[in-house]
Amino acid sequence: MKRLTILKLGGSAITDKARECTPDIPTIQSVTDQLRDYDLPLILIHGGGSYAHPFVAKSGLGKGFRGGSQLRFISETEFYLGQLTRIICAALLLRGKLPVLFHPMSFVTFDNDKVKKILLDPVRKALQAGLIPLLHGDLVFDESQGVGILSGDRLASLVGNRLGASRVLLGSDVDGVYSRNPKSFPSATLITEVTSENFRSVLKASRGPSGDATGGMGEKVRQALQLAKNGCECFIFNLKEKSALRKILEGDPMIGTRFVPWRSSRKSSRRSRRKV
Amino acid sequence: MKRLTILKLGGSAITDKARECTPDIPTIQSVTDQLRDYDLPLILIHGGGSYAHPFVAKSGLGKGFRGGSQLRFISETEFYLGQLTRIICAALLLRGKLPVLFHPMSFVTFDNDKVKKILLDPVRKALQAGLIPLLHGDLVFDESQGVGILSGDRLASLVGNRLGASRVLLGSDVDGVYSRNPKSFPSATLITEVTSENFRSVLKASRGPSGDATGGMGEKVRQALQLAKNGCECFIFNLKEKSALRKILEGDPMIGTRFVPWRSSRKSSRRSRRKV
Repeated sequence: MKRLTILKLGGSAITDKARECTPDIPTIQSVTDQLRDYDLPLILIHGGGSYAHPFVAKSGLGKGFRGGSQLRFISETEFYLGQLTRIICAALLLRGKLPVLFHPMSFVTFDNDKVKKILLDPVRKALQAGLIPLLHGDLVFDESQGVGILSGDRLASLVGNRLGASRVLLGSDVDGVYSRNPKSFPSATLITEVTSENFRSVLKASRGPSGDATGGMGEKVRQALQLAKNGCECFIFNLKEKSALRKILEGDPMIGTRFVPWRSSRKSSRRSRRKV
Repeated sequence: MKRLTILKLGGSAITDKARECTPDIPTIQSVTDQLRDYDLPLILIHGGGSYAHPFVAKSGLGKGFRGGSQLRFISETEFYLGQLTRIICAALLLRGKLPVLFHPMSFVTFDNDKVKKILLDPVRKALQAGLIPLLHGDLVFDESQGVGILSGDRLASLVGNRLGASRVLLGSDVDGVYSRNPKSFPSATLITEVTSENFRSVLKASRGPSGDATGGMGEKVRQALQLAKNGCECFIFNLKEKSALRKILEGDPMIGTRFVPWRSSRKSSRRSRRKV
């Protein structure tokens, strides 16, 4: 498959995280506008944002399934998430793009927080046909813990590795990875490039409590590093920054934080990854 | 799994087939009312009705995928179908039931109109947790033909066989199987019971042009027979008939057309079917 790109639409960018089940319509409009003329193979993955995180937090589903009132949270969270997917689908259809939903809970299972089964053939077939598979961070059933969380970032990395994506773009509501948490330290500087040389210090800088049900910046950096190690170029960038997405899609390497593919492992890992 | 029931909500009953993308709200209300107090394991499968059939017919997707304008039909049909699923989900949630969507295109693939891959673990896990899996007739990717149609009736039979359902209830907009097409022959009589003795004549009576994208009554009878041969009790009944669903759920054998499990094959086939 020619130059497959995976674009993660971060829940904190496309929803109002302060209000339950509230989309950030201007950002969704802007993102889908920037995708209008992009015709290469593309998979979209959206985060849950305020359509999922508040309910995951309230229910304690992040720590596994104990039954009881958690059941209602599963049912409702899936219902709300579906609404966010529909808003994005509609925005794409209105711009002449052809998305098609794939529902992670339907095709992934975990065992002890690790992928046990995954069926990616339908996603692969949709791509080959010329459609835009649209996935999302989701609850999935877990053999040991009952229920687990497959974050959008992790899903991007998982699908990127399995389908041999050449680029994974993690769109967020911040400009990229900073030397320290920029919300607490205004003097923090943006790290523009992460390589096999400086990755340890970047990993360290991105750690810390995020308050996010799916791990925040630390999780993004871990997933991006895993992809870069496998030879895939990654970006963490600001989806709310005007034209940033379009520039990255056009190949501009100067947006956000770029994770340079690790040369040493690129070739061998590329060879070992299944092709679309 | 104790007494698993699969209930198919026929598209002709829960939608207005004369108007594109129009739900039959009174029927959906009535059906979900009748399910309110039902607490045994249940899988719901809805047909596409006017949310899918008009687009499948227009696009020619029933005869395989040739590309071009069919792509847009795939994307749009999936979008519309998702809306019908949401209406049913909402009706169930409002009655305290806990549905959770499973999206067939995400977990089934065909090859030459036969199932190639299917991942049912998530549906099984949801059932075990106490949720109500909600599936629907769908387009699925087909290795040879590009795209195929997995009708709700076929899905009910497929899932029923794989999960060892004890009952499959095919809810329609007619009272059951008739000796002749009742719309053309007012003197036609309802066949109340189909057994290994009379099945050939019933099969013959149900054939004929249906004008339905997924095979109409003939397809229902074929799927019901396949289930009955495997030891599963089946009903074809009128979902619009007041209280018919509740009566069947309570074990009344006198509603619609009942397909009696074939004694000779029941035990052996039961043994060979995987348990939930």
